[in-house]
Amino acid sequence: MTSADSLTALRDALRTFADDRDWHRHHRPKNLAMALIVEAAELVEHFQWRSHEEVDVLDEAVRSEVADEIADVLLYLIRLADVLGIDPVTAAQRKMVKNAVKYPPLR
Amino acid sequence: MTSADSLTALRDALRTFADDRDWHRHHRPKNLAMALIVEAAELVEHFQWRSHEEVDVLDEAVRSEVADEIADVLLYLIRLADVLGIDPVTAAQRKMVKNAVKYPPLR
Amino acid sequence: MTSADSLTALRDALRTFADDRDWHRHHRPKNLAMALIVEAAELVEHFQWRSHEEVDVLDEAVRSEVADEIADVLLYLIRLADVLGIDPVTAAQRKMVKNAVKYPPLR
Amino acid sequence: MTSADSLTALRDALRTFADDRDWHRHHRPKNLAMALIVEAAELVEHFQWRSHEEVDVLDEAVRSEVADEIADVLLYLIRLADVLGIDPVTAAQRKMVKNAVKYPPLR
Repeated sequence: MTSADSLTALRDALRTFADDRDWHRHHRPKNLAMALIVEAAELVEHFQWRSHEEVDVLDEAVRSEVADEIADVLLYLIRLADVLGIDPVTAAQRKMVKNAVKYPPLR
Repeated sequence: MTSADSLTALRDALRTFADDRDWHRHHRPKNLAMALIVEAAELVEHFQWRSHEEVDVLDEAVRSEVADEIADVLLYLIRLADVLGIDPVTAAQRKMVKNAVKYPPLR
Repeated sequence: MTSADSLTALRDALRTFADDRDWHRHHRPKNLAMALIVEAAELVEHFQWRSHEEVDVLDEAVRSEVADEIADVLLYLIRLADVLGIDPVTAAQRKMVKNAVKYPPLR
Repeated sequence: MTSADSLTALRDALRTFADDRDWHRHHRPKNLAMALIVEAAELVEHFQWRSHEEVDVLDEAVRSEVADEIADVLLYLIRLADVLGIDPVTAAQRKMVKNAVKYPPLR
């Protein structure tokens, strides 16, 4: 990742955000993993009673709420990875190579 | 995001991956949100019986497994956002502005 | 389970509750499993920023909220099992036998 | 709950199980809530790529796996409630009264 990368910028903004609120003692990986799954559940909640067809035509207010939950999951994921010293993009690139072996293409 | 951005590259790779395996009919937002929280739980599983102190000294084998779970969450999040037509980085930047208002800095 | 059993009574009350609200078409196992994990996350949320020691001295207001979340998980679990035609107590008894083999006692 | 109640019997069996394995130090509410959501996710995993129609005709092998995951969620829920000193059935009965007010019947 170059310094201009969007995830790196978010990582740095999250560091400053935690610094400015004295949140480092709370931001242990165990706690951040819990916060992450809580946000993932808030994302799931938008879909639990909706059919696939209803999801295809979400109104703008709900889409905006869904975007906020996607944001929350991404922010906690970046923060957790940072606290653990793991680069999420490198991890994802490595995992895609594994997945390509595990699930060979049909053609 | 520029075309060189790491998340955009992952998004495009995931599109091709789904194309090559005929997975589009499975990749509905409802299903992808479920897959995402399942991966988030596999991340949580690494921390459930470990204390904060034990997490601080994870061995390399466990760290590699944790990195794989972080990767899986990121990949499903990118894919879900793509299928919904939501830009996760823009959403995260917008959410950070909201968070700064909701949680004012201590100093 | 006898007819006087508390879980059976809750199961029957949940059936009537769904009948009276025309919720059967929503109460598909896939949807109920999603609702269940969302409630489990609301339970997790109470613990994410609290240390073990802080959890040991929860005040009554928080304990009441935690009890409500435990209730929600139990209710969706009973409902999901009912819709699937699975007896959760028989399943739990069977699983405890498996667990006793998987994790032998220390003494 | 009377002493003959199935949940009380499972609660007592789980206490003995933890005693015999010296698991009490691990069975803090924070950890048990994490374990519970991990089991909930293993339940969700069975439904993520299946349609409602496919879920309606699960074969016996999958149904047995689903029953095991329902069991795991129930066992961790009973254990968590016990460690917290909360009676899950009383909590569920109280919650159903609240729900009946929140969601009035259609008829």
